[in-house]
Amino acid sequence: MEADTVEAPRRGFSRRSLFGLAGAGVVVGAAAGGAVGTAVGRATAADGGGMAGTVPFHGSHQAGIVTAAQDRMHFVAFDVITDSREKLVSLLKTWTSMAERMSQGLQATPDGATGSGEYSPPDDTGEALGLDPSQLTITIGFGPGLFVGAPGTPAEGEDRFGIAARKPAALEQMPRFMLDALDPARSEGDICVQACANDPQVAVHAVRNLARVGFGVVAVRWSQLGFGRTSSTSTTQETPRNLFGFKDGTRNIKAEDSAAVDDYVWVDGADDQPWMAGGSYLVARRIRMQIEPWDRTTLHEQERVFGREKGSGAPLGQDDEFDPLDLQSKGPKGLFIDEDAHVRLASAEKNGGIQILRRGYNFTDGSDGLGHLDAGLFFIAYCRDPQKQFVPLQTALSRNDLLNEYITHVGSAVFAVPPGVGGSGDHWGSGLFA
Amino acid sequence: MEADTVEAPRRGFSRRSLFGLAGAGVVVGAAAGGAVGTAVGRATAADGGGMAGTVPFHGSHQAGIVTAAQDRMHFVAFDVITDSREKLVSLLKTWTSMAERMSQGLQATPDGATGSGEYSPPDDTGEALGLDPSQLTITIGFGPGLFVGAPGTPAEGEDRFGIAARKPAALEQMPRFMLDALDPARSEGDICVQACANDPQVAVHAVRNLARVGFGVVAVRWSQLGFGRTSSTSTTQETPRNLFGFKDGTRNIKAEDSAAVDDYVWVDGADDQPWMAGGSYLVARRIRMQIEPWDRTTLHEQERVFGREKGSGAPLGQDDEFDPLDLQSKGPKGLFIDEDAHVRLASAEKNGGIQILRRGYNFTDGSDGLGHLDAGLFFIAYCRDPQKQFVPLQTALSRNDLLNEYITHVGSAVFAVPPGVGGSGDHWGSGLFA
Repeated sequence: MEADTVEAPRRGFSRRSLFGLAGAGVVVGAAAGGAVGTAVGRATAADGGGMAGTVPFHGSHQAGIVTAAQDRMHFVAFDVITDSREKLVSLLKTWTSMAERMSQGLQATPDGATGSGEYSPPDDTGEALGLDPSQLTITIGFGPGLFVGAPGTPAEGEDRFGIAARKPAALEQMPRFMLDALDPARSEGDICVQACANDPQVAVHAVRNLARVGFGVVAVRWSQLGFGRTSSTSTTQETPRNLFGFKDGTRNIKAEDSAAVDDYVWVDGADDQPWMAGGSYLVARRIRMQIEPWDRTTLHEQERVFGREKGSGAPLGQDDEFDPLDLQSKGPKGLFIDEDAHVRLASAEKNGGIQILRRGYNFTDGSDGLGHLDAGLFFIAYCRDPQKQFVPLQTALSRNDLLNEYITHVGSAVFAVPPGVGGSGDHWGSGLFA
Repeated sequence: MEADTVEAPRRGFSRRSLFGLAGAGVVVGAAAGGAVGTAVGRATAADGGGMAGTVPFHGSHQAGIVTAAQDRMHFVAFDVITDSREKLVSLLKTWTSMAERMSQGLQATPDGATGSGEYSPPDDTGEALGLDPSQLTITIGFGPGLFVGAPGTPAEGEDRFGIAARKPAALEQMPRFMLDALDPARSEGDICVQACANDPQVAVHAVRNLARVGFGVVAVRWSQLGFGRTSSTSTTQETPRNLFGFKDGTRNIKAEDSAAVDDYVWVDGADDQPWMAGGSYLVARRIRMQIEPWDRTTLHEQERVFGREKGSGAPLGQDDEFDPLDLQSKGPKGLFIDEDAHVRLASAEKNGGIQILRRGYNFTDGSDGLGHLDAGLFFIAYCRDPQKQFVPLQTALSRNDLLNEYITHVGSAVFAVPPGVGGSGDHWGSGLFA
């Protein structure tokens, strides 16, 4: 295998380059150059023309947090099934290298799907060969059970990896909120990986290859495919709609608002554990939407529940989606926005200024066995401190949100998302395991 | 609600047009004009530049069969829960009108998400507002249970709708094949709807709105989201890869081969029931792939199983994907293509010339609870007569295919797919219920 073939991007895959017959080297940068054809789905010119391109893997923060939300997601939570710190750290190093490569549109390893010899298992599972990088980001998080073995697991209460003392105070399982109906099989996990891309096959390929190489060290606890983004994380994006048909995330923190991002997303070195500086916390909630009862309610009720117009997304009493949310304004029938409307209870104004960065996805997972679609929102939030942001917010919502009649939280997890990976030799978790 | 707003395409949605303030009419044709941005995923220039555009709904055949396979799919099987022929036919008429509109990028009904008044439930669930038509096709099929109540249902053995005599002989549940491990909750159904689009939210929206309006007449039995197409149905498309990393469907029937399509896909009026002329039969198989054992096998074994090279897709012993399949050619070690290789056993040459039109999708549905991803292929085949095409083919494969070590069929269904809908006033099933 010659050097020029090792770095052949997936898009440039061909028998010639695969088997070292190509004359000239194929450079990595070419990976982003394969964009052809026309737009699909929610692509807009404002996305920067790079829906097929690459997002840098290295940096002070991990990609996939303030990155303009890609259209599709595959999320996986793993149980760590070894007690060996050495094996775990070795896997994190391997994963880092693979993630870096896949983010560039390369195969997971230099040998890839066909390069390690006829009598070895391929190093890459191959289903992304020929596909664009599709803005793939791969983001890792560490659950409480990595620090102290999770309840109900063989490692319960154990400091398997000698890192219990490094567990951040902010990394606590979510308390039980009112109306929670959590399924343990869809909750928690020792490590999570969020793979987002504009082509779902690219996201699934990334998760699958990390899971594959983790054999003996990690096992898939649960995974979730999200087919459509429900939040914008950049002012360049149009606000998408959730499965209740409403625009979602109009007032989300946007990447361009660096003050809000610094205040509410990135962990400061002085916050808690120094190794988390530049990281964040990820809260995941699988929210089943009772779409059938919802679909039988009136437009008036639906808009009252959200506090926004369904069509335009404007706050009730206003005209346009981005008009300011005026919680006091009244019409002839009283307050435009109900006392318990979702938009009011979720607002920074009602929560002491608290904001979170939402990055969720719509899902549809077959049928519930009762004649309905199993559909909803896979909610993901990034916070600087979930105990101070998500917990009070969700406490308020779980008590009074009008939406509660139509939704059920069926899965929950929290993860410490370490900072980004620096230059060559650095790896996911290097600070934690230093 | 003024006429010009009634026909506003989803893409042209705005407060102005929604509430009748627009001065000039918005025409349907504009729906396909919203393409902006760059390519995503498997879009190629050869797709015709229309990944965001429309596929005609009307015609002698239903769309979604020989239509160049879109990238994403949502498939649903319904139980019919009424005994009223009148209600069933009424629903089919309503569905036809909705499907016609949604295929054009319009909301499901003229009133749509916000137009039927504040104190009525919206007519459209709204989550596709602002999205392109994305080449949406919606294809209906009728299962054996529609003609004679399916075993295990309250209507078992009953001719609920007076159409038992019109049941085509070809429409029989699949026999039990070797190694089948079918889950009844993922099998059969009285009616199916296959929604394919390049934006999954558009496909999910279509299925969800049909399910919604079917309340009291149908109930969701099972549904399946497919995230990536695994077959080409047009010579303009690149061959995609399945989750074993192999190109799949290289030798599939292509829409451009009208002789093969006529011979193997479209039902002739003289075949059986006259109402099926121009229709086809759909066989669906949910095939779980044991991706973890597969990933641990050698490249040599993987290529022996398929009979093709993993990288190029070429038949073993050949150079290029589209080189002819030579089942007799030998190398120094004997036959290039194993006696039980998938490509040999599935070939027309080994099956008396039989071909089928494959139109499947990759899926990933969370975890199997044993530390693995629940992933595989949702296989869809269209045949002129499944008893003469799919059944003998699958009988041969189920007995000897080397792939069987790595796959399990866990769901199965068959449906009679009626011909296309003609002009105004025609509807799905009009021939059957005439």
